[in-house]
Amino acid sequence: MSSGFGTVAIWGVGLIGGSIGMALRQRGLADEVIGIGRPATRAAAADASGPGGGAGAWEVPEAVRLGAVDRMVTDPAAALARADLVILAMPVQPMIDLAPRAAPLLRPGTVVTDVASVKEAVVAAWERHLPDGVAFVGGHPMFGRERSGVAWASADLIPGCRWVLTPGQRAVTVLKAGRSGAEVSPLELVWDLAAALGALPVVMSPAEHDRRVAGASHLPQLVATALAAAALDLDETQPGTLELAAGGFRDATRIADSPAALWHEIWANNRPALREAVAAFRGVLADLEAAVDAGDFGALAAVFERAHAARRRVGGRTGGPA
Amino acid sequence: MSSGFGTVAIWGVGLIGGSIGMALRQRGLADEVIGIGRPATRAAAADASGPGGGAGAWEVPEAVRLGAVDRMVTDPAAALARADLVILAMPVQPMIDLAPRAAPLLRPGTVVTDVASVKEAVVAAWERHLPDGVAFVGGHPMFGRERSGVAWASADLIPGCRWVLTPGQRAVTVLKAGRSGAEVSPLELVWDLAAALGALPVVMSPAEHDRRVAGASHLPQLVATALAAAALDLDETQPGTLELAAGGFRDATRIADSPAALWHEIWANNRPALREAVAAFRGVLADLEAAVDAGDFGALAAVFERAHAARRRVGGRTGGPA
Repeated sequence: MSSGFGTVAIWGVGLIGGSIGMALRQRGLADEVIGIGRPATRAAAADASGPGGGAGAWEVPEAVRLGAVDRMVTDPAAALARADLVILAMPVQPMIDLAPRAAPLLRPGTVVTDVASVKEAVVAAWERHLPDGVAFVGGHPMFGRERSGVAWASADLIPGCRWVLTPGQRAVTVLKAGRSGAEVSPLELVWDLAAALGALPVVMSPAEHDRRVAGASHLPQLVATALAAAALDLDETQPGTLELAAGGFRDATRIADSPAALWHEIWANNRPALREAVAAFRGVLADLEAAVDAGDFGALAAVFERAHAARRRVGGRTGGPA
Repeated sequence: MSSGFGTVAIWGVGLIGGSIGMALRQRGLADEVIGIGRPATRAAAADASGPGGGAGAWEVPEAVRLGAVDRMVTDPAAALARADLVILAMPVQPMIDLAPRAAPLLRPGTVVTDVASVKEAVVAAWERHLPDGVAFVGGHPMFGRERSGVAWASADLIPGCRWVLTPGQRAVTVLKAGRSGAEVSPLELVWDLAAALGALPVVMSPAEHDRRVAGASHLPQLVATALAAAALDLDETQPGTLELAAGGFRDATRIADSPAALWHEIWANNRPALREAVAAFRGVLADLEAAVDAGDFGALAAVFERAHAARRRVGGRTGGPA
């Protein structure tokens, strides 16, 4: 490869794919970044005083205009055949459903990774259909926002985030030329990608990933959404409730802004682990309620101590006054 | 009164009482701010080069050193008899338990307010024991932090916060001289206090307050604490879970840093409303789980739409990309 990761195809240029594209382009890590997807455009008004003046309105793909990719194509076949590195960044369910048709389009030597929030279902679907010589390295860059779409994308979202890698069967056996010219495994190549964009790569199995994010991400989303919706119910029973909501409520429900379609697909592909996480949460909630009903300070304090311990572990609870 | 609110006694100079004292003093709104409480001190090291050099270590009450009050007294009787305005700012349970002994110490003409997070139990306890001519105006300034103690206090916490007022029986009938010299009711006086410190006063009944904060504040605390503690349980079952917690988890559990003792007393004095709020939350959680299990996108989207509506109502969900 002449520069970094060669030709990179990003299939699905939304918040995540768009942010990765921007980071690759800003850091000069790819020869070309090709976006695959529907040609979302925004009509650009003609500027009569500029070089294109007088030519009337024209359309530029939004992902190009925002600097996420060099060009957009609608037909995946040519881009997939041309790419050194393919990043799957469409929503979870299409990513799974497309595998039987899309995987056979890849040429030998290509490395494929993805950005989905669930890994077992995605890795299994793609591994099943890969041609010989193509390696799949599952990926989950753990950055995001409560919104979707390339308009919310930013290269600045990536530095410091965890980027989980769940290598498939050929991810460590096929070798190819890395950025330095030396031969590297596909896993090392995608690790290098994550690190080059400022993220913190970490390797685990797809099953480990899915159980961990069930507790760290999928359960918190379910709880925050239920909390915000319940507050609306309570405001209908007791008008004025939401007027008294302050910073605590806003922080606790921030992620409830996320879109339903995103979580429908994530949760549907991680049901057993999510069910286990919700059961653990229900258990603690029942413990807390029982302690409140009994006026049992010892039992209440024991739950708070565990909550404080969790907060210390994630760097959220510090020692003294600021 | 010569300046603002005259002599103000703050009983309990912690995070809330300390912040109010700082704000009163910084804005020059009181002749004197007297703190009532145990004399928490910090040994100040002798500075041999300063004016007190060579005198050895001496002790200054922490609340005085931090500018929260002009002086601290341990015996409430003299301070209460001297004060024009008394602000009760000790923890909730002592505030209720002290009423029979403390209320009779007040002299006619005094206005008493408090800062407790529950209002029915506090207002009832104090109204029952007030001497003639003393008015109680329940108050709940809705600012705070996840920590307690005067070391965390700051006048900057107050501006922009809601300050709920729940006037007692004599709060609108007894008149006294206000800041302008004109006669005002005790309710108007405490309203003026809240407004003068930059807060947004709002009047309601104690019962209305308690039901509203159950949904807006007490339920979110219970849920956030349960979520953080459950994540620790899940991390024990699946090590590595907390390592994958990101900004969403941290925001959703920020208030879980709060101390157990504070919430033990608040929840114990608002059980019926809290129980109702938790029941509403459990109902929505069950709806979400059922929708996930059934793969029912319509049902899931309906809950998200209600969550989004609640977020818009609290100013947490905005329109387009930043």
